[in-house]
Amino acid sequence: MTRPQETLVGEVRAWFGDRAVLTDPADIEPWLTDWRGRWHGRAAAVLQPQTTQEVALIVAKAADLGVALVPQGGNTSMVGGATPPGDGSALILSLRRMNQIRLIDREAMRVVAEAGVVLQNLHEAVGGEQLRFPLTLGAKGSATVGGLISTNAGGTQVLRFGPMRGLVDGIEAVLPDGTIHDGLSGLKKDNRGYSLDQLLIGAEGTLGVITAARLKLYPAIHSRAIAWLGLDSPQAALDVLQSLQASTNRVEGFEILPQESLNAVLSHIPATRAPLEGQFPWQALVEATAETAQEEQPQELLTRLLSPLIEKGLVRDAVISSSEAQAEAFWRIRDSLSEAERATFGPATQHDISVPVEAMPRFMADAAAEVEKAFPGTHASGFGHLGDGNIHFHVRSGTRGGADWLEREGPSVSRLVHDLVTAAGGSISAEHGIGQMKKDELARLAPDRVRHLRAIKAALDPKLLMNPGKLI
Amino acid sequence: MTRPQETLVGEVRAWFGDRAVLTDPADIEPWLTDWRGRWHGRAAAVLQPQTTQEVALIVAKAADLGVALVPQGGNTSMVGGATPPGDGSALILSLRRMNQIRLIDREAMRVVAEAGVVLQNLHEAVGGEQLRFPLTLGAKGSATVGGLISTNAGGTQVLRFGPMRGLVDGIEAVLPDGTIHDGLSGLKKDNRGYSLDQLLIGAEGTLGVITAARLKLYPAIHSRAIAWLGLDSPQAALDVLQSLQASTNRVEGFEILPQESLNAVLSHIPATRAPLEGQFPWQALVEATAETAQEEQPQELLTRLLSPLIEKGLVRDAVISSSEAQAEAFWRIRDSLSEAERATFGPATQHDISVPVEAMPRFMADAAAEVEKAFPGTHASGFGHLGDGNIHFHVRSGTRGGADWLEREGPSVSRLVHDLVTAAGGSISAEHGIGQMKKDELARLAPDRVRHLRAIKAALDPKLLMNPGKLI
Repeated sequence: MTRPQETLVGEVRAWFGDRAVLTDPADIEPWLTDWRGRWHGRAAAVLQPQTTQEVALIVAKAADLGVALVPQGGNTSMVGGATPPGDGSALILSLRRMNQIRLIDREAMRVVAEAGVVLQNLHEAVGGEQLRFPLTLGAKGSATVGGLISTNAGGTQVLRFGPMRGLVDGIEAVLPDGTIHDGLSGLKKDNRGYSLDQLLIGAEGTLGVITAARLKLYPAIHSRAIAWLGLDSPQAALDVLQSLQASTNRVEGFEILPQESLNAVLSHIPATRAPLEGQFPWQALVEATAETAQEEQPQELLTRLLSPLIEKGLVRDAVISSSEAQAEAFWRIRDSLSEAERATFGPATQHDISVPVEAMPRFMADAAAEVEKAFPGTHASGFGHLGDGNIHFHVRSGTRGGADWLEREGPSVSRLVHDLVTAAGGSISAEHGIGQMKKDELARLAPDRVRHLRAIKAALDPKLLMNPGKLI
Repeated sequence: MTRPQETLVGEVRAWFGDRAVLTDPADIEPWLTDWRGRWHGRAAAVLQPQTTQEVALIVAKAADLGVALVPQGGNTSMVGGATPPGDGSALILSLRRMNQIRLIDREAMRVVAEAGVVLQNLHEAVGGEQLRFPLTLGAKGSATVGGLISTNAGGTQVLRFGPMRGLVDGIEAVLPDGTIHDGLSGLKKDNRGYSLDQLLIGAEGTLGVITAARLKLYPAIHSRAIAWLGLDSPQAALDVLQSLQASTNRVEGFEILPQESLNAVLSHIPATRAPLEGQFPWQALVEATAETAQEEQPQELLTRLLSPLIEKGLVRDAVISSSEAQAEAFWRIRDSLSEAERATFGPATQHDISVPVEAMPRFMADAAAEVEKAFPGTHASGFGHLGDGNIHFHVRSGTRGGADWLEREGPSVSRLVHDLVTAAGGSISAEHGIGQMKKDELARLAPDRVRHLRAIKAALDPKLLMNPGKLI
């Protein structure tokens, strides 16, 4: 521990007691490695404030002392965004003890939740009031409100509700100078210049520490149904989606996967079975919901809207879940894709990328062909959130070798994929953020953008103490 | 004209021809005074680029030369936001020649419009495609897309659609260093750090020049109806609004005014008549719409939802427009309020303020009492967008004297109003922005905020050349 770090740790312990500081290596260890096990850092202590005032005091003192801080929620970043630097130059500032839901306002349909509230707990708390916070994702049992906002998280319901940015109605944060920004007032109109709330969304903790947020809620779901479709191509999937969206706003999930990915799930994940009898090049999962018993129920809605598409031959086969257990089983297939692909095909270079929705089917075909041509023997394919123009594009080493080849050539593969995404007007990070993983690529592909982001960063955090080494 | 200004004007003329520069004082004159006639500036030239590339070249050259620029659209700012400084130190950069609608995408329900497109022209262009851009306001015949975004404009339909921020899907802008930020790709997910789009919304032209925007569209209106209500109090109005909102999302306008304001309109505006027979302390205008002929039509909807409120006595009387002409007549009363109040009661100190919606009725009563106590003889009252927590709070000099008294004491009155707004957790600018008018008050009441905004400003515009003297 450096001398300034020691001073800070001593002060925090004196101010807030032993519970506010972890220094035992065994306690710190779980927070030094990222969710995927790809980044490892060092930190001599984890600071664990319990109130916004405590965060403000810590950040102000750290600024005085020149101690860098890595804000951390559930530590579920996919891009190394919450892992401390390897040189031990930063302490971890964990928000997990700030886990109170301060307010649920049924009339205004808003919840004020502290940064450390775990997404699943948020779901349950507002569900108890017959309300719903619609964003959800695989890591919901660990991911926290602060981290979800700092990464502008996506997930499977973005199609209808948008990513986190669209669900935030105000942010409370401690800025790098230790001042508190209070954006929780719930004003519907406030035109006092640049929105600090918006600046903090997706900032990956580099501009301050989010301590609480006011979030939008929706009516609880009364019922849902999942249709599983057999299709010829991603273009057919997009045509189906656009046809559905022209008739209803109740479609809130639309995921696609190739047959080989489904086969991987069926062979490697226990107690899974194929939703359809036949084999189809592509498959889609479509989720629809209803909020009341009075409106058309999702099963009927999906049956009514899909029938003409089956007659036209656009949908080659379809089954619609008839129970919540079946709906869960369908989602389980989707959620097991990464694990099953890894078990079946070995490791892959993964890319969380987006292009304009209507360009995605063409991009998927062209990019796979380009990659396989440039790296003969590899296999490239994508799955995921077609309706958001966001797929997870995986390149497997195939006949080129295994993990070693990937370790060596993965960065070259990724550069090609990112070049293709950029040429298609897309983004090299759709929903996972930049973190450590894509920092160099962002600087390579968007130098003007990174220059402007760095200027903003230096303006608000002149000593560059907030989450160093991430994003820019 | 300063030497650097002369150089810039010469270059622009050489590059883009005579049409790109106005230097005749008669041509410049209309752009030197604000909409309300309260701020007067000087500028030796108006630069009028026609493409984004032209804007970029001008901004880059101006940055080199150290020439300040005042971006200007329709020049309809209510706070002196588009008026050049009085010392002639800046040139006007007019976006009016960038008036193309580049694209209307019916499938995606998006329009890409250049900064100089006038709001009414935008309405008409998308209306021709059976689509609707829902934001509207009194200055729609002059206000431009760039200005509306730069001020995060509000208007009368914010209740349902939100202010400009919620309607922007991407921005193209020239940043102060002359680089082009292209946010028009239409990506549904893009997590590459801080959102420059969001930073430019409401920045009042101080961080760069918006050149075009991708905007959200909605289905065209099939029909609309306006209810005019007689009420006892703003609290009754709020109760009515909340009751309506619990049953429908088709209410998109909800404006309140006191009887005396209505009387002012009736006596001073030709061809207006009272919507209701009786006199009521407060009145409300409620607009509802339908998008198709199949759904319940707005007149029936309003009748059905208001009837029980009339029976309960919450609404004391009501009339619902039975024709488009009648609907227009009701809106005309609302739109004439400022003009009629001025004619009847003389000038007033005006405050565009917001507090949390549910706190507004109490705030209106308390603030009026406080102001009238502190400045005996004055009269304070508010009208406007109750459903947004945003009213226009006017203080008339009353028995204290006329324009002279206001000229002298107005700033003291405004400071008190702003103190009360701040104490109520509100904003001293709800929808008009800060501009020149509220700059000192913002610095007085939110010094931390202004310090952070200034740091961001200096980071992106280190020579402080973009719209000097505004906001911060």
